[in-house]
Amino acid sequence: MPVGTVGTVKGVPQDVLEDLGVGILLGNTYHLYLRPGVETVRQMGGLHGFMAWERCILTDSGGFQVFSLNELRKVKEEGVTFRSHIDGTSHFFSPERAMEIQIGLGADIIMAFDECTEYPAEEGRTRESMELTLRWAERSKVHFEQHKHEVPWDKASGSGLQASGAARAGTPVRPSPSQGATQALFGIVQGGMSKELRRESALRTVEIGFPGYAIGGLSVGEPRVMTYEIVAETLQHLPADKPRYLMGVGRPEEIVQYARMGVDMMDCVLPTRAARHGLLYTSQGEVSIKQARYARDEAALDPECRCRVCRRYSRAYLRHLYASNELLAQVLNTIHNLSFYLETMRVFRGSIGVASQAL
Amino acid sequence: MPVGTVGTVKGVPQDVLEDLGVGILLGNTYHLYLRPGVETVRQMGGLHGFMAWERCILTDSGGFQVFSLNELRKVKEEGVTFRSHIDGTSHFFSPERAMEIQIGLGADIIMAFDECTEYPAEEGRTRESMELTLRWAERSKVHFEQHKHEVPWDKASGSGLQASGAARAGTPVRPSPSQGATQALFGIVQGGMSKELRRESALRTVEIGFPGYAIGGLSVGEPRVMTYEIVAETLQHLPADKPRYLMGVGRPEEIVQYARMGVDMMDCVLPTRAARHGLLYTSQGEVSIKQARYARDEAALDPECRCRVCRRYSRAYLRHLYASNELLAQVLNTIHNLSFYLETMRVFRGSIGVASQAL
Repeated sequence: MPVGTVGTVKGVPQDVLEDLGVGILLGNTYHLYLRPGVETVRQMGGLHGFMAWERCILTDSGGFQVFSLNELRKVKEEGVTFRSHIDGTSHFFSPERAMEIQIGLGADIIMAFDECTEYPAEEGRTRESMELTLRWAERSKVHFEQHKHEVPWDKASGSGLQASGAARAGTPVRPSPSQGATQALFGIVQGGMSKELRRESALRTVEIGFPGYAIGGLSVGEPRVMTYEIVAETLQHLPADKPRYLMGVGRPEEIVQYARMGVDMMDCVLPTRAARHGLLYTSQGEVSIKQARYARDEAALDPECRCRVCRRYSRAYLRHLYASNELLAQVLNTIHNLSFYLETMRVFRGSIGVASQAL
Repeated sequence: MPVGTVGTVKGVPQDVLEDLGVGILLGNTYHLYLRPGVETVRQMGGLHGFMAWERCILTDSGGFQVFSLNELRKVKEEGVTFRSHIDGTSHFFSPERAMEIQIGLGADIIMAFDECTEYPAEEGRTRESMELTLRWAERSKVHFEQHKHEVPWDKASGSGLQASGAARAGTPVRPSPSQGATQALFGIVQGGMSKELRRESALRTVEIGFPGYAIGGLSVGEPRVMTYEIVAETLQHLPADKPRYLMGVGRPEEIVQYARMGVDMMDCVLPTRAARHGLLYTSQGEVSIKQARYARDEAALDPECRCRVCRRYSRAYLRHLYASNELLAQVLNTIHNLSFYLETMRVFRGSIGVASQAL
């Protein structure tokens, strides 16, 4: 899932995302709550109507961003008080509030409100944090079940504008949000770097019962080998017939590895953020396009890539755009990196199909 | 002509420019000379190859930008010494050097090196400046005729990359730069705000003889009514069967007015620059998209516009992108403004066709 923090994948128009085959986007609840605000989005028919995107959307719970604010937040049983990174105003998120906001934003998949345990953390602290996340998961589910029919999807087709993407052939299409359809609320497993706590968190989250499960609290500074071990341990205790979502990863070779382990969904700012800093992923490895060695390089960025950037522009041109601090550098670099990530996963999915047929 | 200062119309990919029906782009010689430098562009087959754009390109002579540097330049008979606005390094442009650079850049239309007379200026100073421009026009032509076959077009199709735009149906196509084809060098009329000097400059520039003529030195701070008068006076003395190009204008209603007077070509940074500052041109007048009144406005930016921005996105979304300082704001705003300008001229050209048929 490409990350579209405030209702836009930075620099890339929605029709280009459709052409890239993006079937689902991630939006950040914390950012959207601050700008443009949930009431605005709700009135526009939810995020789908607001950003003119008919395919699927997932919103995170806001938990991760709020916990990233460090000095600006205060956690209690009831919820979290925090200050906006934009204007310093004080706000409060609880499981109930996070549900209310996410229902208003109207994504297809929404996330339970959780506490992302910091790394490193003592065993006792990790357990406390995990227990809090479990209590919040219960409260999230209760509130969601009571209010899930308030999702503003009826209004989604209210304006005369057209989001033309859903009907295109051969691309993932969002189930029609017709009468009675509601969002899907996923639970989140925590438990820090303890396999025992991860197992317990997974089992107890599954006991609460959700249509999909996420593994949170990873990629927070721990060594990569530890991430793999925790993911492997946690996956064992999550039902294979429900979507399993690993939050906030990863590099191209890592997402393939996680998919191979059984992860179904991932999101990461890496392809888009790295692109804006001139770091490009190719079939031949990473390319730092700012380097002078590319100044007169007539080759495509990645000769094996069929994206609209690689088909048309040379490394020399991309290097020039980046060196001249041109807007188009960020646009084209982002399109390529997204294409590379999406193609990586497409190829992997294809290999699953082949493996299944061989059985 | 949209302005693509350093080989890019800021924020807009070339395929979108093609879809908008852009038949010719303007590149700035001064900026391209500094970054990426003429040798790089020449080696990539000229600007066409470098920026993967098969349709037409015009480069200015660098004169206007150099004269805008004020404190950083020194004008002599031979040429102009100036300092780079990027790193303060010293450079020298003469008519011969401006031709050499523009031949290396390889645009389809290039401009004689001129002095843009400042406003206001005394009659004597204006005449001196006009005479200098005439001598430089001669020198430009002499150098161009001797070196025009050095244009690097043979190399334009050297790389394996495709600029896919030229062949699309119903859009302006650049004449094939096959063996022997060269660039077209246009002369520039100066003469400040004096009708007499404008007449003299026009007649003597035509005497030197060019395949097209530009009116320079306007939109430099003079009242708009004065611009109209000088344009009207100058046009009378330029052949109607050659392209007449008014440099650096203007607002939407102005470009229609100039076209009605007989101007064939114009360029202006206004649609693209204003877009990046949230000022949008619509059939109902200017819209400052940053205003809070648009925060929940579900309507299209311009309900009468058929561009890809107006067909898909609401004012509320565009306002949110701008208020959140999102890259996509600049991309979408620029696409709309260019569409509005191009459609304005398309409609006007259509009205010429109708008027011709009625005769």
